[in-house]
Amino acid sequence: MVNTDIEIAQQAKMLPIDEVAGRLNVQEDQLELYGKYKAKLKDDFFHHSRNDKLGKLILVSAITPTPAGEGKTTTTVGLGDALNQLGKKTVIALREPSLGPVFGMKGGAAGGGYSQAVPMADINLHFTGDLHSIGAANNLLAALIDNHIYHGNEQKIDPKSITWKRCLDMNDRQLRNIVSGLQGNTNGVPREDGFDITVASEIMAILCLASDRADLKKRLKEIVIGFTYDKEEITAGDLKAEGALATILKDAFKPNLVQTLENNPAIIHGGPFANIAHGCNSVVATKTALKLGDYAVTEAGFGADLGAEKFVNIKCRQSGLRPSAGVLVATVRALKMHGGVKKEDLAKENLDAIEKGFANLKRHFNNMQQVYGISTVVSINQFPTDTERELALVQSLCEQEGIEAIRSTGWRDGGKGVVELANAVVNIAEVTEPAITFTYDDNDGLEDKIKAVVTKVYRGSGIQLSNKAKSKLREYEQLGYDHLPVCIAKTQYSFSDDVQLKGTPAEFTIQVRDVKLNSGSRFIVVLTGAILTMPGLPKRPAAENIDVDDKGVISGLF
Amino acid sequence: MVNTDIEIAQQAKMLPIDEVAGRLNVQEDQLELYGKYKAKLKDDFFHHSRNDKLGKLILVSAITPTPAGEGKTTTTVGLGDALNQLGKKTVIALREPSLGPVFGMKGGAAGGGYSQAVPMADINLHFTGDLHSIGAANNLLAALIDNHIYHGNEQKIDPKSITWKRCLDMNDRQLRNIVSGLQGNTNGVPREDGFDITVASEIMAILCLASDRADLKKRLKEIVIGFTYDKEEITAGDLKAEGALATILKDAFKPNLVQTLENNPAIIHGGPFANIAHGCNSVVATKTALKLGDYAVTEAGFGADLGAEKFVNIKCRQSGLRPSAGVLVATVRALKMHGGVKKEDLAKENLDAIEKGFANLKRHFNNMQQVYGISTVVSINQFPTDTERELALVQSLCEQEGIEAIRSTGWRDGGKGVVELANAVVNIAEVTEPAITFTYDDNDGLEDKIKAVVTKVYRGSGIQLSNKAKSKLREYEQLGYDHLPVCIAKTQYSFSDDVQLKGTPAEFTIQVRDVKLNSGSRFIVVLTGAILTMPGLPKRPAAENIDVDDKGVISGLF
Repeated sequence: MVNTDIEIAQQAKMLPIDEVAGRLNVQEDQLELYGKYKAKLKDDFFHHSRNDKLGKLILVSAITPTPAGEGKTTTTVGLGDALNQLGKKTVIALREPSLGPVFGMKGGAAGGGYSQAVPMADINLHFTGDLHSIGAANNLLAALIDNHIYHGNEQKIDPKSITWKRCLDMNDRQLRNIVSGLQGNTNGVPREDGFDITVASEIMAILCLASDRADLKKRLKEIVIGFTYDKEEITAGDLKAEGALATILKDAFKPNLVQTLENNPAIIHGGPFANIAHGCNSVVATKTALKLGDYAVTEAGFGADLGAEKFVNIKCRQSGLRPSAGVLVATVRALKMHGGVKKEDLAKENLDAIEKGFANLKRHFNNMQQVYGISTVVSINQFPTDTERELALVQSLCEQEGIEAIRSTGWRDGGKGVVELANAVVNIAEVTEPAITFTYDDNDGLEDKIKAVVTKVYRGSGIQLSNKAKSKLREYEQLGYDHLPVCIAKTQYSFSDDVQLKGTPAEFTIQVRDVKLNSGSRFIVVLTGAILTMPGLPKRPAAENIDVDDKGVISGLF
Repeated sequence: MVNTDIEIAQQAKMLPIDEVAGRLNVQEDQLELYGKYKAKLKDDFFHHSRNDKLGKLILVSAITPTPAGEGKTTTTVGLGDALNQLGKKTVIALREPSLGPVFGMKGGAAGGGYSQAVPMADINLHFTGDLHSIGAANNLLAALIDNHIYHGNEQKIDPKSITWKRCLDMNDRQLRNIVSGLQGNTNGVPREDGFDITVASEIMAILCLASDRADLKKRLKEIVIGFTYDKEEITAGDLKAEGALATILKDAFKPNLVQTLENNPAIIHGGPFANIAHGCNSVVATKTALKLGDYAVTEAGFGADLGAEKFVNIKCRQSGLRPSAGVLVATVRALKMHGGVKKEDLAKENLDAIEKGFANLKRHFNNMQQVYGISTVVSINQFPTDTERELALVQSLCEQEGIEAIRSTGWRDGGKGVVELANAVVNIAEVTEPAITFTYDDNDGLEDKIKAVVTKVYRGSGIQLSNKAKSKLREYEQLGYDHLPVCIAKTQYSFSDDVQLKGTPAEFTIQVRDVKLNSGSRFIVVLTGAILTMPGLPKRPAAENIDVDDKGVISGLF
């Protein structure tokens, strides 16, 4: 009988978190404990001078996700444990889970099996409160906007121009589109409005990209929430909001320290969407991990066309971070789906489908290695249903292309199942100068930046902009935002903007429906297709099975 | 120059919270630290057998509030410090502040001057995350309701009958009344909807009244969220929500331990509204304080007609708690306002107004002493502007009525300014058998219960029920909720339901507009007049002045 993730997590022999921190030479007074097994790291670690010896950064990404599951976080955790087994002091830097999916369909997000960060239930439920703080900051700004209009609208905000939405850390489709301010004079001003899930808030992206508290406040101040009737930007600074917002985020800005099942340090901090935002954990967390470890292993959301592209063109560009190696996670199951197999047929061996689906891996690998300039190794994350012939085939296909590919069994075996991968990563990182290649220059036009990603990364033939998108891009350029990078919101299930096109679609055009200025997180969001920023719950939500007993022990989390 | 509350708080010499806990014989492994100066107490303290020696409970209430401010929390904290100075091991049990008012007008809520609980900024900003957790539980239930309807509505919930609202810990009038579920088939089901502030959520009241985790889950299960088309109750249990809700509240259910400026223990936990809910801190916190101290000092929201009435008829009735003494806080300023003085004239000595306003104090004292059966002493909370003649007059008026009244200067002097009051409290508590008198019996009809409070406590002549309220009360009785106590939502600014009627209004009738079944918190809310359950922000919100510097030090909180 196989143990569930939460059962494994609950059996973990955790060390007190100050002991885990102590091994990194973090003193007790640099920690703020949240119970015995969680802590926040004080500001001491945010800054690093050029002279500090910094660790090597490893980026974990993946092929195009499928409903079969890839195990990117599981691989990241396992790789961290394995590197520690090899004697490399390694800190894992993960994204923070959202509460919404926990009660919906996806479940937890702290790895799986024997490659998990713990305490698993705490990490998935409120954790140290960061997401709620981000939500509160987001919603205070929203309340200040409507309050300003209600009390006479001195700034002449055009209510129809407001782009700032409210948010909740919940899957709640009912709140996607609302009309607020109803029922008379004392109850606000009626207007169309809506909620995003908290991880889609620009404040989440800001928190993840800010280099220190001063930069955080500057970015908060620069958030454009809408426009005046004369089409001039209205910022959070115009509403004198930045001080209160930064105050709400006082603790949320500090990285959280937990441990893996093997008692190695894991910093879990920040978790923006990888479509309408950049999908990477916070810059302060990554820099802290690099300051404390010889190695820092981090991941980026969805496939390498989304998370890794934004890791390079947004996170690295804004922060100066440079990876020493990359890992591309693939599974036999996912390759079979890219080769045309349906989910219900995955248990059957299918070598033809693997050969066909392999093209997806190859394109992502090529992006990692050539387009982003990150020396990369493939990790085949083994599932119990994979046959030896299937696994061997993936490896030989890789070999034919000169791609190093290594089997990993972190889910089943923890760190020792990822040692071979860890060795490969070390071999690359020890000889590679940290570097990346940007896909476009700051000085390129906004439309050219979008085109560059579409043609070089997605391998589409071009873009088609709606009139609205075209005129807004022109407007942003005139307002002086032409130097910002672009953050393309595209389905994670295809290189194209069509969810159905698995594998390696070609000759497609990306339809740009709309664009949005995120001046605080300092990128332009490019909306392709219908990207939901507020998920819904399934017919039988996971919430129905989650329980806690009279002693506070949780069950049904997965 | 006078220091502001936050300046005083920031200069405090706090002890590590495990040291504060240690003085109460709480072991380190019974604590969950949240930083160095905050902790949650583990479940060990929730239960007490009849054989345990319990401390004496002191209830602090007040006369009818005015914009002049009364200082109930300041007195509570000062009294706790003073009792500790007298060698009585005393634990303060306060309500948890809401984030909304911090950014609006009211400011913080952890006492004032030299009678404060600290760390003040933390307590006022997220604290240990309880309010956000309560909000998340509230909003998960809301999402599950709409999700159920969206996916086919097996339970036949009548959308128009839904009484469960969403909530945010924010002052945001724009969200009071909304239409949600707009824009087509995949985005929910359009209906009228709205948000309350989190402290108005029934889940807050449930958390505060539950005796242990089993009772918490049972209450969550019994929440009635609306009715079927056939007018049958739909509960959270019908949606299989109680396990997930209890899981979300896993940590929020544990009381929080902090300290006063004088390093005495303060448990701050739970904070429901004192109008549409019962306005008292949690039962588990109060019982924990009684278990750890010789004395526990707690408070109830607004004046003694609201908070103290509900303390008796709801909190004590449901929990078995019984106070040994009561304190009624009054100020010269407030008495002058009850005597007809306007706020701008408060600085001027006015003995006539005090004589006139004294009737308000007398009625509240009589309620405390005779109606609720709590032996009570009056605390005159001194302000710098009070003249000696004014203070002496209040004392002599009290003396004429056989009321013990003592001046306190906790705001200026901390515990030593409240020692005389503490001595008086001890004198009462040491000779008084803990007891209360309920204002009505469980078996009285619901309408009779409302009448009893209105005539015996408010001293009105009777009640007038709207047809809607009348028929809903009948319906609740038929459904078997006739045994529940009533929770009257009335303005805090008058004994009557008319805000303008200060002092001691007589011959008034209370208009009952509507009633609402809160089956989880186990009371019937009785709505009189227009009670706002979602505040708004003022034209110049406090948020504009709140700031945090590059090192994380907060300013502008008051």
